[in-house]
Amino acid sequence: MGGIFIAVDAMGGDDAPRETVKGAVEALADARVNILLVGREDAVKRELSAYKYDAARIKLIGASEVIGNDEQPTSAIRQKKDSSIVKGLNLLKEDRAQAFVSAGATGALLTGATLIVGRIKGVERPALGALLPNEKGFSFLIDSGANVDAKPGYLLQFAKMGSIYMEYVMNIEKPRVGLLNIGAEREKGNALTKEAYGLLESSELNFIGNLEARDMPLGAADVVVCDAFTGNVVLKYTEGFAKAMLGMIKKELKSSVISKLGALMAKGAFKNLKKSFDYSEVGGAPFLGLKALVVKAHGSSDAKAIRSAITRCTEFAEKGIIEKISESIRKDTIKGSESNGV
Amino acid sequence: MGGIFIAVDAMGGDDAPRETVKGAVEALADARVNILLVGREDAVKRELSAYKYDAARIKLIGASEVIGNDEQPTSAIRQKKDSSIVKGLNLLKEDRAQAFVSAGATGALLTGATLIVGRIKGVERPALGALLPNEKGFSFLIDSGANVDAKPGYLLQFAKMGSIYMEYVMNIEKPRVGLLNIGAEREKGNALTKEAYGLLESSELNFIGNLEARDMPLGAADVVVCDAFTGNVVLKYTEGFAKAMLGMIKKELKSSVISKLGALMAKGAFKNLKKSFDYSEVGGAPFLGLKALVVKAHGSSDAKAIRSAITRCTEFAEKGIIEKISESIRKDTIKGSESNGV
Repeated sequence: MGGIFIAVDAMGGDDAPRETVKGAVEALADARVNILLVGREDAVKRELSAYKYDAARIKLIGASEVIGNDEQPTSAIRQKKDSSIVKGLNLLKEDRAQAFVSAGATGALLTGATLIVGRIKGVERPALGALLPNEKGFSFLIDSGANVDAKPGYLLQFAKMGSIYMEYVMNIEKPRVGLLNIGAEREKGNALTKEAYGLLESSELNFIGNLEARDMPLGAADVVVCDAFTGNVVLKYTEGFAKAMLGMIKKELKSSVISKLGALMAKGAFKNLKKSFDYSEVGGAPFLGLKALVVKAHGSSDAKAIRSAITRCTEFAEKGIIEKISESIRKDTIKGSESNGV
Repeated sequence: MGGIFIAVDAMGGDDAPRETVKGAVEALADARVNILLVGREDAVKRELSAYKYDAARIKLIGASEVIGNDEQPTSAIRQKKDSSIVKGLNLLKEDRAQAFVSAGATGALLTGATLIVGRIKGVERPALGALLPNEKGFSFLIDSGANVDAKPGYLLQFAKMGSIYMEYVMNIEKPRVGLLNIGAEREKGNALTKEAYGLLESSELNFIGNLEARDMPLGAADVVVCDAFTGNVVLKYTEGFAKAMLGMIKKELKSSVISKLGALMAKGAFKNLKKSFDYSEVGGAPFLGLKALVVKAHGSSDAKAIRSAITRCTEFAEKGIIEKISESIRKDTIKGSESNGV
């Protein structure tokens, strides 16, 4: 069978393997894609038996172990050689798949990905991207979870990878890159952002300068660059804040008969809004900078979320994003050695 | 005249001196307070002439200059000796007032406060607090704007000052202190939070461990401790996100006749909600760790916001917060020298 091969961790996530298997089967609606389902044979087979699908396009890869969220990442990867995460990542290493989607343990997935799949030559640190909803569409927040203590040079590479992702996967022309900071002026910020500013400014990116957090939800930048501590705080805060705010609205609306009636009439509108902040629409967080694509899906992913993630992986593979990142990083490495007097 | 004296920067903010003077006059409704209005004599007098008030309780302190938002803080403080900010801060230094409220230039105010008013003995760095609304009330976010590159020991002091503020000014018994972090487990985080965790754990504070950003809006902690880069990002993100979300709700509600009608009926509820995220209800951001209280009010403060800030300053002065902070920091300094073998 030709085409694109996406490996899927059948055992990862709160509702695995039910939702993961369902999502994988549904993803076959895209004729380009073939699936490698990694997980416990009996459990996955049982789930698969509920569906009609083209058996030639889904292959089951047996993996008897599962890595839990509470396990220490490095030792889990070393010890559980027959886990769905390790076996899935090995499929990438062996070139049997172009991407691996997992809703399993984040730490183990990222650590394993770096150890097993390996970095693209010249990439200092792979970074986790995340699509955050804004008034106009989405911003790509990078790094949202991998490097909590970053260096200025990392941030430049995060910006390049994010820019390529937004341009080719999300079809944004000349993505506007903003440096997440506490003021608009170039001299604002901490030691990290002050130095990163200069690097971003002299790059070929469409750098729009510092971005204040208040302008993020307005869609002021397509790519938002930051260290993973800041990025993860923003990502999780968004999740909690949207939930709390919708809760507060509900409570307010229930406070009088009139507004209660109003709320009933506006129900459809609220449903649409909730959808905007729904991870399942987004298709997971891509871990960029490795020799193949690894996508972290939310732990609470349902079939739709898994399907979205697979679809985005297909786009990613078809557009040759790994090669584009490699090329962009290579250019800098060459420039670097030239300016070092070569 | 006896009682509490609060200095107010009549010239600071977008709508000064109109709103600042109005707010100061309205604050006299609290019988404990006396106001020192600092600003251009002619302009302030003109505003004052519109109101009836007890002239014995408002004193005008002439200041011919104003520091703008775009001026370099340190040089502005050095050069503009007759500015409302410098003169207001001098009132604190000379013990003529217990607190100073300004909606003017943030950088100049914080820099000037540290230079002119000076730190409480033992305080390594003063920090800017902010009250963030959550489902249950407010969390106190500290540091939200002063120290972008913090050390673990600073974070411990921020936690102590925030805890005292919430206990005595906001009347929260045993405030729960959370360390803003990217995971709940103690080993999570960056170099800063990993080390700060141990310090907080062995303190006398009601430390509840790491706090994930998603739990902040749910009211999981009363005091949220972090460096000012993270804190300022969260603060400004909240502002932008609440605005964007209300905008998105409005747009959704206008999408059909039924939901439009529903929105009309629910109008009062939305108004209440907007109020929850309204800075003017909150009363400004206290800059803690100095020998007197300095409060930064939002640039867009109206009379109500200025009045709230003055009221909170009055509470602060009456409860003797400076002495309580001083005592709490001193205890640690003594403990520190003992463990050093004294």
